[in-house]
Amino acid sequence: MKKYFAAAIQIDTQSDKALNLSKLEHYIDEAAGRGALLIGMAEMVNYIGEGGGERENAESIPGETIHRLAIKAKQHGIWLHCGSIFERIEDSEMLYNTSVLLSPQGNIAAKYRKIHLFDVNVKNGPNFMESNTRQSGSDIVVASTPLGHLGLSICYDMRFPEIYRIMMLRKAQIVFVPAEFTLMTGKDHWETILRTRAIENQVYIIAPAQMGVKPAYPTYGRSLIIDPWGNVIAKMPDQEGIILAEIDLDYLESVRRQIPCLNNRRPDLYDWNV
Amino acid sequence: MKKYFAAAIQIDTQSDKALNLSKLEHYIDEAAGRGALLIGMAEMVNYIGEGGGERENAESIPGETIHRLAIKAKQHGIWLHCGSIFERIEDSEMLYNTSVLLSPQGNIAAKYRKIHLFDVNVKNGPNFMESNTRQSGSDIVVASTPLGHLGLSICYDMRFPEIYRIMMLRKAQIVFVPAEFTLMTGKDHWETILRTRAIENQVYIIAPAQMGVKPAYPTYGRSLIIDPWGNVIAKMPDQEGIILAEIDLDYLESVRRQIPCLNNRRPDLYDWNV
Repeated sequence: MKKYFAAAIQIDTQSDKALNLSKLEHYIDEAAGRGALLIGMAEMVNYIGEGGGERENAESIPGETIHRLAIKAKQHGIWLHCGSIFERIEDSEMLYNTSVLLSPQGNIAAKYRKIHLFDVNVKNGPNFMESNTRQSGSDIVVASTPLGHLGLSICYDMRFPEIYRIMMLRKAQIVFVPAEFTLMTGKDHWETILRTRAIENQVYIIAPAQMGVKPAYPTYGRSLIIDPWGNVIAKMPDQEGIILAEIDLDYLESVRRQIPCLNNRRPDLYDWNV
Repeated sequence: MKKYFAAAIQIDTQSDKALNLSKLEHYIDEAAGRGALLIGMAEMVNYIGEGGGERENAESIPGETIHRLAIKAKQHGIWLHCGSIFERIEDSEMLYNTSVLLSPQGNIAAKYRKIHLFDVNVKNGPNFMESNTRQSGSDIVVASTPLGHLGLSICYDMRFPEIYRIMMLRKAQIVFVPAEFTLMTGKDHWETILRTRAIENQVYIIAPAQMGVKPAYPTYGRSLIIDPWGNVIAKMPDQEGIILAEIDLDYLESVRRQIPCLNNRRPDLYDWNV
């Protein structure tokens, strides 16, 4: 399909998992009811809390969260990008931060584990060491679907142009960036970086964000859908809910014809061995 | 030196080469008089005209333009990034689009030939085939100076994150992007992409631009200096002249400590063979 509506759900996930899941189901119903065939959710969408809660609420995949969301995908006959959830690792204290893409049949069509871990110490902002408790994924993922080639990434990944370029080389047309972006970094970096990822790779970006104050830091919110020219075509204000925008793969092709920068690359001159 | 002023010259270069050069000398005097130790100029800074004029006005390097600018570098004891000019190629009809970095002694400290050629056909915008008349360079260039490690790029290069990443891996701290950016693409892409190059590589960006209407298209102007957090610290309005901003390499280091994304890269997972 070349032209259809996609949606992003913005949510303030907290430590009441049952509440988080029922809110997600509500917003999926709303977005599907308004015609969305592809819906994205935020990072750590089913639980955000303190201390050991992350590990206690982590799941196998598939587990409770994916089972419940798969029922919704099937009920509405839509594609669901389930943001990310913590995935248990057998015989390990560590967790993966994992995205799952569900088909309209409720099957797992793709899975992506966050590659770049958020180890930062921002002045007047977050101090965070994800690599203490989380394990990095090892695969860059692009899923081929009837709605287009979908690239998967998570939050901090967006600072690394490499994986978006590689997704584009693997034919990505629509790239998901579920996030729990911090307020302090979001004000300067969120929209600018995401727009550039859209422009330089000539892809749609669907970036559903956490909003609200979490135990670790206040978040930036401001979920976005961006077109391949870099225009923000949907932006969420500071509340929970959904945004919708049209995906038009013919328009994407016209952008790629106008500025064929993907063909003008010079990989023969990119020497990464430095 | 860790802290000093840099400047960018915005100019409306047209086909009167003598006038273009005398304007440049005037603005260099002004910027040096206001304390700039490092001055950048725009793309095709000494001549922009129609038809065969480009070839007639192309020079060897060093040639007239570089000789005259070298006198200014020496006179003021400053570093001059001479934007770009057309460089003759022996026994060829083709030209290089070449940047020259001059030392305070008036010597050529580095030379960069534009790698990515502007072959585009934008709806309601420019239709241009640089590769018909210009030859691509083959080297990514970072010059080590007492003012920092200076990365060199030109205009359309900015759409290609690869060469900025490679410059950063080669220790670049300040990156030049002289440009003749088009109005139609500039309104959506210029500032967004440049801010992202600063943010993702945690470098200063000095982007001196052409302004005014050229034979091929109207230009966007709006020369920028951007800090390593992505803040625009100087922006030129729609007139000829200079902007100045402070370069602070200790601040750059503090940004790199706060978000060590350069260390958090995962080159082991970046498979470019796709």
